[in-house]
Amino acid sequence: MKTYVEMSQEELKAEIASLKESYKKYQDMELSLDMSRGKPCREQLDLSMGMMDALNSDADLSCEDGTDCRNYGVLSGIQEAKVLIGDMMENNPDNIIIYGNSSLNVMYDTVSRAMTHGIMGNTPWCKLDKVKFLCPAPGYDRHFSITEYFGIEMITVPMTPEGPDMDMVEKLVSEDESIKGIWCVPKYSNPQGYSYSDETVRRFARLKPAAKDFRIFWDNAYGIHHLYDDHQDYLIEILAECKRAGNPDLVYKFASTSKVTFPGSGIAALATSLNNLEDIENQLKHQTIGHDKVNQLRHVRFFGDIHGMVEHMRKQAEVIRPKFEAVEEIFDKNLTGLGVGEWTKPRGGYFISFDALPGCAKAIVDRAKKAGVKMTPAGATYPYGKDPLDSNIRVAPTYPSIEDLKTAAQLFTVCVRLVSAEKIYKEKFN
Amino acid sequence: MKTYVEMSQEELKAEIASLKESYKKYQDMELSLDMSRGKPCREQLDLSMGMMDALNSDADLSCEDGTDCRNYGVLSGIQEAKVLIGDMMENNPDNIIIYGNSSLNVMYDTVSRAMTHGIMGNTPWCKLDKVKFLCPAPGYDRHFSITEYFGIEMITVPMTPEGPDMDMVEKLVSEDESIKGIWCVPKYSNPQGYSYSDETVRRFARLKPAAKDFRIFWDNAYGIHHLYDDHQDYLIEILAECKRAGNPDLVYKFASTSKVTFPGSGIAALATSLNNLEDIENQLKHQTIGHDKVNQLRHVRFFGDIHGMVEHMRKQAEVIRPKFEAVEEIFDKNLTGLGVGEWTKPRGGYFISFDALPGCAKAIVDRAKKAGVKMTPAGATYPYGKDPLDSNIRVAPTYPSIEDLKTAAQLFTVCVRLVSAEKIYKEKFN
Repeated sequence: MKTYVEMSQEELKAEIASLKESYKKYQDMELSLDMSRGKPCREQLDLSMGMMDALNSDADLSCEDGTDCRNYGVLSGIQEAKVLIGDMMENNPDNIIIYGNSSLNVMYDTVSRAMTHGIMGNTPWCKLDKVKFLCPAPGYDRHFSITEYFGIEMITVPMTPEGPDMDMVEKLVSEDESIKGIWCVPKYSNPQGYSYSDETVRRFARLKPAAKDFRIFWDNAYGIHHLYDDHQDYLIEILAECKRAGNPDLVYKFASTSKVTFPGSGIAALATSLNNLEDIENQLKHQTIGHDKVNQLRHVRFFGDIHGMVEHMRKQAEVIRPKFEAVEEIFDKNLTGLGVGEWTKPRGGYFISFDALPGCAKAIVDRAKKAGVKMTPAGATYPYGKDPLDSNIRVAPTYPSIEDLKTAAQLFTVCVRLVSAEKIYKEKFN
Repeated sequence: MKTYVEMSQEELKAEIASLKESYKKYQDMELSLDMSRGKPCREQLDLSMGMMDALNSDADLSCEDGTDCRNYGVLSGIQEAKVLIGDMMENNPDNIIIYGNSSLNVMYDTVSRAMTHGIMGNTPWCKLDKVKFLCPAPGYDRHFSITEYFGIEMITVPMTPEGPDMDMVEKLVSEDESIKGIWCVPKYSNPQGYSYSDETVRRFARLKPAAKDFRIFWDNAYGIHHLYDDHQDYLIEILAECKRAGNPDLVYKFASTSKVTFPGSGIAALATSLNNLEDIENQLKHQTIGHDKVNQLRHVRFFGDIHGMVEHMRKQAEVIRPKFEAVEEIFDKNLTGLGVGEWTKPRGGYFISFDALPGCAKAIVDRAKKAGVKMTPAGATYPYGKDPLDSNIRVAPTYPSIEDLKTAAQLFTVCVRLVSAEKIYKEKFN
């Protein structure tokens, strides 16, 4: 098989004509499909319906320590929820605050607090002339949205299959005191599904930042979101490694059950050093009397313990693994050997990352949209929504039905081929 | 009956000796009672246990418009929750955002957003040399805690049975551009249980603030929290009145179901103009994907409509009305005619406000504490925790059992009398 670049003018012309015909057929189908967001599908949500029975009107809504979960109080969360989420996050329950329904909200509030009050006695960021964040990219658009909203300058750091380019990270944070943080999705990263190597985690824990209030924003969004039973990624636990390295306060670690139970009705958590916890609780006590303890208890009663949660995630994997495999199979079949792009094959998480030929991503997403398939906007995976190469596209396979997903993936490969072929034709023969 | 001031030295000496004996008896009882916080009691919480059955594993967790409440999305809350809470707040559902479990959190975030990003295009407050808030006092300590935390200068405005001193409010806000807000609990106020008069609400709606970004923080915490069926306070609805007065953007109105269903597991809301809503949602979209829609749906299914909620609050009133009446009866019996203090007799809300002789509040609270009865710290109802007269004490009758409450109230009156008598004795005869 020839790559598109190797094809003659006639061959490429014929290929384009044939692709246009295929594309037209998809347009005629009047599709309305969505591969844009990392949303669980109905079958996944159905797996958690038992949670609605975990507490009923006959239940005793008291904690093991006697706290009535129905009433005010307990700022940092109930103990049994800290134990469960501690097991989920691989952290000591004493290092955890349980929050409301959204870890994104916790991250936003963490940045906001640093802006108005500073971190552990340091100058509030809003009083500084310049605050910068490192943004490994491609990455999570909603992370970048928070820092952009606060006027924080974002510096793109290239991602590799081992994690962010650590040479660059080490150099920048050690030289520039205005760099206050870095956004990380260390496991089954968004969108590539990469997990940071041991070497990467070790180097993170040993960073020597110029800024005393530099923090790693470690969004462990997919910590237990494996696709396979037998091929799972394991990371060195970052808090423990930071402590061993003599940098105990270096990291804020975030997680939630949004993609374990119900997005929007899960529980979120932050794990960090006791120093950081004290700093945070001194603010949190002004913000709220406490988060939803009944929902914390509901989660504990539903899962029992971490094994219950792991078994639950195995069922989730059974629903979404075929979807990942279907997309990968279609990509393999339709795109391999044509030199029109590369894609990741993650073992967990919610995304497949597709790298098109430079300058093609926007056109591909646009083509797909015009045939009724919604993708994450091209560029969204980069700070300020600007992919310098216009190459990366995030593919979210979980939400559509498997049939819809196959159709969408087929159409997507047609768009990739058509846009690539036209671009190559234009460059070579026009 | 003579007041303490009218008593002779002998009479007052005998009274003090007798009170010391009474006090000693309470000390010997080794009490551990709490009249410090506005917490619902167990019987009140039990009234909402049916909410745990409102959604079960067989339930369809879809909204009327088909939205699956289990999944991501719907930033401002589900429509049927807006309708229910709109009826509760007396506002158009279109003017409402439904939040998470805590209206305090919404207020904090509202101040925090103004600090970092300003209100409707105005300068962020953190960029200003000075930001001030008016604080009608006695008032709610957690309000004052938010503004103090953000370094906002608080100016005390005296409360009257009609609401804040509006002459002072009008003068200050029209003259001083650095005054950006005022904390209000307009109905069954915390701690006095006063409701703002029609005249007061009308004058609020017609304020002419020097600052374009001045907002009234209208915490309608006790909007439906009546103690009596037949004697209820009605307020002019502030958003409507502001609109009529040509000041549609002047007010943020807050409420929650914390003292309707479960504190900590209710739903909070903000009602405001469409301009303000747009401003807020432009921030909120960076902070979260959405709040807990399942809990919103749970509330809607449990209550059905506002009539269901009103009937529910009638049951709550039946539990706590006897507690208010018991305290008032004991105060009447033990304190009337002695000239040692005054107290309010609210028709709703969660508190009775007690004004001791100047300089006595701290000593009274301290005495009560040493006999095992915890009160809200004296001073807490004033900005910076400093009551200039050391006079006001907040009494929270809802949480203890009626028997405990009677004991606590009896002991409290002994403390009031003892501290007052000793003070008068010292001033007159020493």
